[in-house]
Amino acid sequence: MKFFSDNAASVHPRIWQAMQAADAADAAYDGDALSAKLDAAFSDLFGAPCTALWVATGTAANCLALAAMVPPHGGLVCHKEAHIEMDEGGAPGFFLHGAKLLLAEGTGAKLTPEGLRAVLDAIRPGVHQVQPHAISITQATECGRVYAPAEVAAIGALAKARGLGLHMDGARFANAAAHLGCHPAEFTVRAGVDALSFGCVKNGGMSAEAVVFFAPDLADVVRFRRKRAGHLQSKGRYLAAQILAMIEGDLWLENARAANAAAQEIAAACGGRLLQPVEANEVFVSLSPAEQAVLRAQGFDFYDWPVSDDAPAGTLGAARLVTAWNSPPQEVAALARALSVL
Amino acid sequence: MKFFSDNAASVHPRIWQAMQAADAADAAYDGDALSAKLDAAFSDLFGAPCTALWVATGTAANCLALAAMVPPHGGLVCHKEAHIEMDEGGAPGFFLHGAKLLLAEGTGAKLTPEGLRAVLDAIRPGVHQVQPHAISITQATECGRVYAPAEVAAIGALAKARGLGLHMDGARFANAAAHLGCHPAEFTVRAGVDALSFGCVKNGGMSAEAVVFFAPDLADVVRFRRKRAGHLQSKGRYLAAQILAMIEGDLWLENARAANAAAQEIAAACGGRLLQPVEANEVFVSLSPAEQAVLRAQGFDFYDWPVSDDAPAGTLGAARLVTAWNSPPQEVAALARALSVL
Amino acid sequence: MKFFSDNAASVHPRIWQAMQAADAADAAYDGDALSAKLDAAFSDLFGAPCTALWVATGTAANCLALAAMVPPHGGLVCHKEAHIEMDEGGAPGFFLHGAKLLLAEGTGAKLTPEGLRAVLDAIRPGVHQVQPHAISITQATECGRVYAPAEVAAIGALAKARGLGLHMDGARFANAAAHLGCHPAEFTVRAGVDALSFGCVKNGGMSAEAVVFFAPDLADVVRFRRKRAGHLQSKGRYLAAQILAMIEGDLWLENARAANAAAQEIAAACGGRLLQPVEANEVFVSLSPAEQAVLRAQGFDFYDWPVSDDAPAGTLGAARLVTAWNSPPQEVAALARALSVL
Amino acid sequence: MKFFSDNAASVHPRIWQAMQAADAADAAYDGDALSAKLDAAFSDLFGAPCTALWVATGTAANCLALAAMVPPHGGLVCHKEAHIEMDEGGAPGFFLHGAKLLLAEGTGAKLTPEGLRAVLDAIRPGVHQVQPHAISITQATECGRVYAPAEVAAIGALAKARGLGLHMDGARFANAAAHLGCHPAEFTVRAGVDALSFGCVKNGGMSAEAVVFFAPDLADVVRFRRKRAGHLQSKGRYLAAQILAMIEGDLWLENARAANAAAQEIAAACGGRLLQPVEANEVFVSLSPAEQAVLRAQGFDFYDWPVSDDAPAGTLGAARLVTAWNSPPQEVAALARALSVL
Repeated sequence: MKFFSDNAASVHPRIWQAMQAADAADAAYDGDALSAKLDAAFSDLFGAPCTALWVATGTAANCLALAAMVPPHGGLVCHKEAHIEMDEGGAPGFFLHGAKLLLAEGTGAKLTPEGLRAVLDAIRPGVHQVQPHAISITQATECGRVYAPAEVAAIGALAKARGLGLHMDGARFANAAAHLGCHPAEFTVRAGVDALSFGCVKNGGMSAEAVVFFAPDLADVVRFRRKRAGHLQSKGRYLAAQILAMIEGDLWLENARAANAAAQEIAAACGGRLLQPVEANEVFVSLSPAEQAVLRAQGFDFYDWPVSDDAPAGTLGAARLVTAWNSPPQEVAALARALSVL
Repeated sequence: MKFFSDNAASVHPRIWQAMQAADAADAAYDGDALSAKLDAAFSDLFGAPCTALWVATGTAANCLALAAMVPPHGGLVCHKEAHIEMDEGGAPGFFLHGAKLLLAEGTGAKLTPEGLRAVLDAIRPGVHQVQPHAISITQATECGRVYAPAEVAAIGALAKARGLGLHMDGARFANAAAHLGCHPAEFTVRAGVDALSFGCVKNGGMSAEAVVFFAPDLADVVRFRRKRAGHLQSKGRYLAAQILAMIEGDLWLENARAANAAAQEIAAACGGRLLQPVEANEVFVSLSPAEQAVLRAQGFDFYDWPVSDDAPAGTLGAARLVTAWNSPPQEVAALARALSVL
Repeated sequence: MKFFSDNAASVHPRIWQAMQAADAADAAYDGDALSAKLDAAFSDLFGAPCTALWVATGTAANCLALAAMVPPHGGLVCHKEAHIEMDEGGAPGFFLHGAKLLLAEGTGAKLTPEGLRAVLDAIRPGVHQVQPHAISITQATECGRVYAPAEVAAIGALAKARGLGLHMDGARFANAAAHLGCHPAEFTVRAGVDALSFGCVKNGGMSAEAVVFFAPDLADVVRFRRKRAGHLQSKGRYLAAQILAMIEGDLWLENARAANAAAQEIAAACGGRLLQPVEANEVFVSLSPAEQAVLRAQGFDFYDWPVSDDAPAGTLGAARLVTAWNSPPQEVAALARALSVL
Repeated sequence: MKFFSDNAASVHPRIWQAMQAADAADAAYDGDALSAKLDAAFSDLFGAPCTALWVATGTAANCLALAAMVPPHGGLVCHKEAHIEMDEGGAPGFFLHGAKLLLAEGTGAKLTPEGLRAVLDAIRPGVHQVQPHAISITQATECGRVYAPAEVAAIGALAKARGLGLHMDGARFANAAAHLGCHPAEFTVRAGVDALSFGCVKNGGMSAEAVVFFAPDLADVVRFRRKRAGHLQSKGRYLAAQILAMIEGDLWLENARAANAAAQEIAAACGGRLLQPVEANEVFVSLSPAEQAVLRAQGFDFYDWPVSDDAPAGTLGAARLVTAWNSPPQEVAALARALSVL
């Protein structure tokens, strides 16, 4: 019973169908008919002009978007627990040619204008310290928290005031959108986001993420950089097919709602163990090593997690439980039950 | 009727089946059971210990392999028409952090010890000129030519004598192997090749190539670099599945033989128009712009091609005709007929 | 009266003489007779085989040394206030091709085995997090503190145990050596240091620092990287001359002792204002903005400094006062007097 | 008797004087009074608004200027014998993060609009081939040839028409200016040059070159990149002093005229041996290995040189003879005599 991540789940049948429907040969790379539909599909989704490119991974999506905003000698501000800082094997250093990640604080891995200002205001102008060029936030965050539209807008306003680009890592964008229930433009383009990594792989896709630019001039350089990074697949139509199928009929939201609901069911069984409010599809719980062993002995598979500085005193251990679009209801129920009797 | 490239052809049914058979969730990234089988599968195929990693594109495969051999301040020798030099959007400059491609001559885009020595011997030792660290050859070449085992071995011996690594870009490795008919070890590991980009996408795959290391110590650093380049997909099992299916039952050879046979059928109709001997699945022909227009008007889709320096005097234009594993026999026959009556 | 830094002081007369004595044309780059003497001069100084290269700046020295130890996909651990992290404009990101600085804590900008282990042990093995390849310490530190030989040796032992290189940023190495009074090998080569940036510019030089390798195999790659970074000056003899003159007759220690003594004189006047023990030639004092204004009105030029987290509660401001090899005694006395009556 | 290069000659007395006059401490880096004068000095010299930065080497000057024009995924066109291609140890690959040098042909290492168009027109638009962003020419060229103002202007017009930046490597700019005898603006700012590496080291300086921007917006990013490359020296006043002294009273022209005259004296003795017209301070002569040995036995020191493709048939060897601002008249005369009797 796998609760270690949503990133290895099965591919949704409608994604499979779309890929197979794309099987006839078409022009190579992104010259095919499906790739050509991406801009319009995202423009419809967000109600604003978008340029969208497919890539295979969230790491590539994040780093290509950021490379369009940050020169090699510049920096970007992100949360100290951001995926780009902690879990991408130094990819930002590679794609951004050594640009620097400037780390900010904030509960629940959420940035705030205050936390950002603390970082930004401490930087001396001039050439001796790396100057910021962008901000990157994660929606939902690495702690499973969701920015409200007003929270994004406050950061967007700060970014604009300081002349900084704003990127959103949306590896679990769908889960955030499902939680918020509002139009996705409200916490992206209308809130000042310039580029979005729109995740599909964790939400029932196979191998496609979209980089969506609300500031279309950024996309041009990314086309070159995608090729240069070996990310321009010759049979790109299979990636475009995945993304289009995800958008069509709001499959992205349907899948995310299912995962979120499963997470809520588990969360409800956790009581005081919850280390973070559960807003998306990740449940962070206080679990001692012994308790973890009990669960694992029952067949539950999950990651243990570092105990963060702001965890309640006496927390002996932590674990992350992640649900997917297709987490089997009986397994979710079993996990909830197991947690409730620990 | 598409003869512009093999790189956009449909995916072979057995590849589809293998991918679907991999649909159940397994460990993420390359921790799954299928990825774990790659080393053994290639070791069996080559009869020698191999380490193999999947990536999504040939560009990534080539550049990751080379990055393991060439430091940022170094260089590598390749043919002046090599794909890494001409058609990868500067990817080697990115992955190798500015290392230099040193360009050698040779007919049919084939390198020779003589051509290599001409480049190598002209480099002054010391820090003022970039020093070579590796050689990269393409099998089959960008002109559709195939290195015989002894030709690779001669280059391998030179590489060893000079302390250089040897990489083989095998985007069309299967087509070369099908042409040669010998054991694939004969023109790789036994001929001094250290790393091979084993192509699948052009041969009926969807989105997986393998980087195969015969010098296993090279693989370790590539694991880090693959992640860092955003090429470590979380559902890597779908890539491993493609590669394993390609090897199983020699599907790779079966597909390549079909493509090669189609190319031979076209070549036989070309007579004196042939600009290169046809050894793999590419046919380079002398075609004036007017003749190209005639063919296109009949529904044939292909790339025009630069007239190379060594083309016969008076050549008014050139075209590249590429066959795929599934080029429809009636379309191949139609193209042959059309060419024969031009 | 300049106490803002030692990095803009006049050049010592013996350095001038040595440069002028080098004026006759000799072989270019580092092929001249003076550059050829560097290895022996440092081998004598440290009583161990050394390879030494000149460069123009401490930033180049640090980054070239580190680039020999840390691959682009790797990381190095340094103090969060280290010069390479705070004040080199992102140069490590450039020279190390995006390798990552992993930041450790420690009072007085000094690293300790405990602080290092806290960083190292938190890194998950594998490709998702950047793995450490080296440690860099600063002697004397950015807070003017000096590592005792045993403190360096403890870090050296940790580095060795973990397979990490050890680099020492010695922009103020002479001041540390003058403070310690022991043989310089005791806190370098015998303590496990692999490469040292031996500073001259802050100590009466003009434009030359030495990168000294106790692990000589590291030097070879740095020769290439120095050229590649545009740091191989064609009239390198003028740089070699500076360094040799600095070593000859222990000018480096003589100059540092003068600067340290001036710092002690100032420190003695500071009483409870001292924020750090004064061990080298930097004095960090608690000074409110109003007090800073008073001093500046009297003609004293210095940097205000961020109030660090571990400063006494109620500290309203801080300043850094730096002495040089030639700080005029009457100016030093005047500053001491002015501080004592604030 | 040294004729191997001008790059190791003695420093001119007026340069020494200027450096010593700068010895009093001033603000660090480029905050000093002398560095502040550079913009005005070059604006006066060129009769147009300039921004000028000092660096230590021509390699750094060239690469920093180009890095402001060419993004990492782009390319620049230069002559196949250009110093940046042949003799800078791959520095452009480092400073430009892997951008590509696109090599053009031309006699005397001079580019022409025709040679440039041959390269530019062969590049397919799109992401698969590296797109050009700049052109770099060398004045005087690596063959000692000088572009006339109209020749630069023709290239400048092409650059403008194609949206490309234009950089001039002026390591021997003074020698070219002395040869042309016209106002230096005529073959720079008025001819479409955007950035100039203004050489001093080969012309009697010690360790300072200027990067001069006629397009001032380019300079801002270079300030950051200079620091990041470890080229922002803290005692920058000594570099500014050299450059200002070189401009003052037209010392740069005086020195260059002396070197050029010496080269002419040697050239006049070479007769049919001359492989290039002598326009600056380099003399390329046909000399067989035996003849080279004769000259060396007489105490003449020089580089042998590759025999270029366009050398007269039967050329058995070549040598480069370089004069400096202070080549002793008796040595020049001796070399001329020796050549005339070979």
